[in-house]
Amino acid sequence: MHSPSTTTHLLLLTFLLTLTHALLNTQTPLLQPETSSPNNLTIATAPWGYHYHSGPLSWHRLSPANVLCKTGIRQSPINIHQALKRPTGLKLRRGDYREYGILENEGQTVSIKPQEEDAKYGYQLYPGDSAGGGGGVGKGGGWALLDTMHFHTPSEHHLDGEHFVAELHAVFKTTDGQTTVLSTLLDIDTTSSNHLLTTLHPWLPFVATPLTATFVQFDPSPILDRFYRAYRRERVYTYRGSLTTPPCTENVLRMVSQDPEKISVEHYRRLKAITKFNARYPQNHPGYMNLLEWACEK
Amino acid sequence: MHSPSTTTHLLLLTFLLTLTHALLNTQTPLLQPETSSPNNLTIATAPWGYHYHSGPLSWHRLSPANVLCKTGIRQSPINIHQALKRPTGLKLRRGDYREYGILENEGQTVSIKPQEEDAKYGYQLYPGDSAGGGGGVGKGGGWALLDTMHFHTPSEHHLDGEHFVAELHAVFKTTDGQTTVLSTLLDIDTTSSNHLLTTLHPWLPFVATPLTATFVQFDPSPILDRFYRAYRRERVYTYRGSLTTPPCTENVLRMVSQDPEKISVEHYRRLKAITKFNARYPQNHPGYMNLLEWACEK
Repeated sequence: MHSPSTTTHLLLLTFLLTLTHALLNTQTPLLQPETSSPNNLTIATAPWGYHYHSGPLSWHRLSPANVLCKTGIRQSPINIHQALKRPTGLKLRRGDYREYGILENEGQTVSIKPQEEDAKYGYQLYPGDSAGGGGGVGKGGGWALLDTMHFHTPSEHHLDGEHFVAELHAVFKTTDGQTTVLSTLLDIDTTSSNHLLTTLHPWLPFVATPLTATFVQFDPSPILDRFYRAYRRERVYTYRGSLTTPPCTENVLRMVSQDPEKISVEHYRRLKAITKFNARYPQNHPGYMNLLEWACEK
Repeated sequence: MHSPSTTTHLLLLTFLLTLTHALLNTQTPLLQPETSSPNNLTIATAPWGYHYHSGPLSWHRLSPANVLCKTGIRQSPINIHQALKRPTGLKLRRGDYREYGILENEGQTVSIKPQEEDAKYGYQLYPGDSAGGGGGVGKGGGWALLDTMHFHTPSEHHLDGEHFVAELHAVFKTTDGQTTVLSTLLDIDTTSSNHLLTTLHPWLPFVATPLTATFVQFDPSPILDRFYRAYRRERVYTYRGSLTTPPCTENVLRMVSQDPEKISVEHYRRLKAITKFNARYPQNHPGYMNLLEWACEK
């Protein structure tokens, strides 16, 4: 999402922050919202969105690289109307973990990028290789590393035609670029809220403006552990789909938990004020003609 | 939404119910949820929806009559990003009113159709004639009668890119078929809920199954009065758009209140379980090329 120079900038800031933290050897949490202003960053963004000529119906026109958004026949999100095949061999492992990340308002979404002590020790997922054939994630690719978690409002995936107020995507990538996305649907609740939103809630005002970012304390394990438990109880739908953003890359292993997590009204309202409307329209059954091609056929 | 024979059936039932009511001369409310089962009706529905080949991208392929869904350049819903012109002459008047209606689960939405004592005494709207030119509703057409109120989840209209959890449409029609739609956005709330949902909430379980209907006590005045007050305070966006369902008829006067009403978590969850996902994707700026045509252009 951000340019190479911005990435370098972020890495440098990460290093300086780590150094400062080591020198101070503080017992207090690494960062508090009150002290985050000096850490605010400015990031770049992509020239696409969810409305008018930059919206989902036009993504394929924005760049030739986005052609799959119109022609791909395994696009995401989808309406899930039955239990799909469960992949074999999904495993999750947790190494040493720094427990902070960079919270970004990318314009199109709010994402949290974990910062690992060492890439090989971060959250890793082994997605197996039997989720519908045709190569892809896990097909001999070994372990994938947690790359980012981000939000969509409203949910992108539907269950039997019904949507939810939000959806959390945990994106894992292998070193050779293969992708697995774990989706957690978020259902509105009067009181309780999931762990990640509870963690991020006080920080969201610091990224209220598009293209800003800040460091936050962050531990993805509760939400990932919960997803993994659902998987082990066979409560996860699995299919081969795509990224739901340009360039709509296919052969992405998608897993969607059947059991929504909770999101409180307060957390939801604060999140949605930033993410706004950022859900792609539902796509066709996997393997069937792309709905945009269908729409254009004479 | 229903066939002529179904309409006749409904009218007959309405008549019989009215007669029974008159004979009993009861002082109790006309109907209670507990007694509504005998009044349950079965209705017909249209062969379109919100997913796959019956979804919004395919509506124009379902019937030649739906061509505007792909080619119309004043389609709804839209993302409202600025105050639009306020029409002159909007007036609302309330005559004698029976205060009951038919609540229907049409498959695509939940609607409530008021039953008037006499058409000329029902809720009527005079929408004026200066909301963007080009004939249409109110252009000498006089008063329009409240035809139906129905819900969309999530909201169809967006405000500055943001959506809301639901949207209520109050549809007024003149005798010569011109249409005005008043939209109220619904924002999730921990406690309070708008009047209409509070009224309908106990009845919704009786129409949980698609294509069922029941009689309910129903007074639209609080929600309409509130909309009209917003209009008088110039808190209503106005544009000429279309129906948001097939056949996507244009020259519909659309008014969208800037100030969302509340909907409680409990009411929202019960409503959404029935309406499921039933929002058309956002259209282009009024007057600009239809986004589907844009998507298909080589």
